[in-house]
Amino acid sequence: MRHERKDDTINIYDIAKLSGVSIATVSRVVNGSPKVSQKTKEKVLAVMQETEYTPNVFARGLGLDSMKTVGILCPNVADNYMATAVSYLEESLHQHGYNCILGCSGYDQKEREEYVKLILSKRVDTLMLVGSSFAGNSRSELDTEYIREAAATTPVFMLNGRVEGNNIYCACADDFHATYEVTKKLLSRNKQKILFLYNSDSFSARQKMAGYEAALSEAGYPIKGELKFKTKNNIEYTRDLLLEYKNLEFDSVVATDDAMAVGVLKYAKIKGISVPDELSVIGYNNSMLSVSCEPELTSIDSKLDILCKKTIHNMIQLLEKGEQIDQNITVSCDIVKRCSTDF
Amino acid sequence: MRHERKDDTINIYDIAKLSGVSIATVSRVVNGSPKVSQKTKEKVLAVMQETEYTPNVFARGLGLDSMKTVGILCPNVADNYMATAVSYLEESLHQHGYNCILGCSGYDQKEREEYVKLILSKRVDTLMLVGSSFAGNSRSELDTEYIREAAATTPVFMLNGRVEGNNIYCACADDFHATYEVTKKLLSRNKQKILFLYNSDSFSARQKMAGYEAALSEAGYPIKGELKFKTKNNIEYTRDLLLEYKNLEFDSVVATDDAMAVGVLKYAKIKGISVPDELSVIGYNNSMLSVSCEPELTSIDSKLDILCKKTIHNMIQLLEKGEQIDQNITVSCDIVKRCSTDF
Repeated sequence: MRHERKDDTINIYDIAKLSGVSIATVSRVVNGSPKVSQKTKEKVLAVMQETEYTPNVFARGLGLDSMKTVGILCPNVADNYMATAVSYLEESLHQHGYNCILGCSGYDQKEREEYVKLILSKRVDTLMLVGSSFAGNSRSELDTEYIREAAATTPVFMLNGRVEGNNIYCACADDFHATYEVTKKLLSRNKQKILFLYNSDSFSARQKMAGYEAALSEAGYPIKGELKFKTKNNIEYTRDLLLEYKNLEFDSVVATDDAMAVGVLKYAKIKGISVPDELSVIGYNNSMLSVSCEPELTSIDSKLDILCKKTIHNMIQLLEKGEQIDQNITVSCDIVKRCSTDF
Repeated sequence: MRHERKDDTINIYDIAKLSGVSIATVSRVVNGSPKVSQKTKEKVLAVMQETEYTPNVFARGLGLDSMKTVGILCPNVADNYMATAVSYLEESLHQHGYNCILGCSGYDQKEREEYVKLILSKRVDTLMLVGSSFAGNSRSELDTEYIREAAATTPVFMLNGRVEGNNIYCACADDFHATYEVTKKLLSRNKQKILFLYNSDSFSARQKMAGYEAALSEAGYPIKGELKFKTKNNIEYTRDLLLEYKNLEFDSVVATDDAMAVGVLKYAKIKGISVPDELSVIGYNNSMLSVSCEPELTSIDSKLDILCKKTIHNMIQLLEKGEQIDQNITVSCDIVKRCSTDF
């Protein structure tokens, strides 16, 4: 057994790894919880002795060698969804006495991997990855290997992304059912050419697309490739792209973020298409954009507040109470009806 | 001379304070710059010897005992302006090898003071205060005393706020001239009842109001109290508030942020008032909201990208090169013309 950290300070994650048990179990041993078997307790204590991991070290935090610091990584904090998430997380962490190191990694795979390493080198208590693009594009398991590596030393909490692995905890909106429901509603209003607008192959975008496809399949409609339309999450870009595609016919739109949906409204205005009479439009994230545009946008509230709250609650359960927590949480979305649909 | 830090590590700010010179001067002494007089050099070196501040300690950073960490504090990172600022700052700091500790203080004076203390206790190289509400409401000098206290140990950079004091560096948009110019334009189009919408008494809001008043005074118009109208930076709130004030007459609006201006557009739509024929509306910050609404909004681009870039440039000049930097920078705004005005 070799200890691989650069410096020689042993922490609770090392003890868990070397003992072959979870962090929660190590925490229970340290806190003298009766829930641990004598055999496990002896194994953990032996590792602690071997590595000279003394109770003194634990004393620094609440039973842990905590720096009371959380690393939050998101691709772009100027994005409204991520900014809102960081705001909720920071507020809640501050209330629990934790500080935040913020990193904005961009979307490049290599930059992102390096940024995770950098944040881990600061000895954070947990790493939080905000935004579903961290969960890779599903084309290769290798894209998420850096997250499993990170989780070998530090608990990783993912917000709206799902990666399987030890010590990785994911909280996701139920995007599949949200787009499934709105697509079903559109079909029930006799919409047959439903355009699906997306801007990435992230975990969340894939869930949304799968919900859209499931509703179509269930109703016996074909899934047409040309109606799954990739754009950018930008009003003008989406408007101009739709204006260019002269042969694209659609009577309704499900977009994976509000800015794309507003782009559709701008397109409809230029083309003289009446919303919602001739065209129904549904956005996502229920941002300020959805009440800024005309007509105001029916949008899916992805319940980011609850997602963040549950994430921090779980983090505290794990780190400070040594409780076992769910690795996967799913939160239901709400459909917020406004004037861009007739349902 | 007594050293007042809690721990006993002496840093460059202590040396500057104890020597009675600027940080830049200490840095020059350490870097052997010829710009420092022999007398000053001897004084600084004497303090360094007395406090056992050895060149070894300096070796950690680039000539400084740097943690390469910057504390960024803003009231609310979910706010689009602040999120965009934090995004620009973080990107630029990361490129220079600095990490960010992010704090969201809210708007309460006491919380804010405590948050500054907390961040300083992390031994950050600089403190950045994002948003003009940190500059107080001008009613009392006491409101900004905590910033001067912070600056006694750590350089403070303010983004769009201005506080006078040693070691405080401010970069501000020229909000005064921006509202002065648009108000003049409205007057030249025969608008005589110009509503000024604002949501705070922050430094920036005061500059904007002063510009509005200056243009009115210069043209010989009275400044009417009822036309300076306080609301929240929220679309629905502003719309509803204007609907309530049945006797408020206005033919044009200058708002201190885009959401308020969009609220005016919503009000106009309900009242059947044509924009811009009967009502001209001007927003601020040129956010995504300004292209989301109908008609699209003429808005003032406060050049946040340049403000952030100059702030980081100055920080690097000060910390790593020991250069003297301007304590006050002003950046001109642009007027972005769209369809809510007829100029």
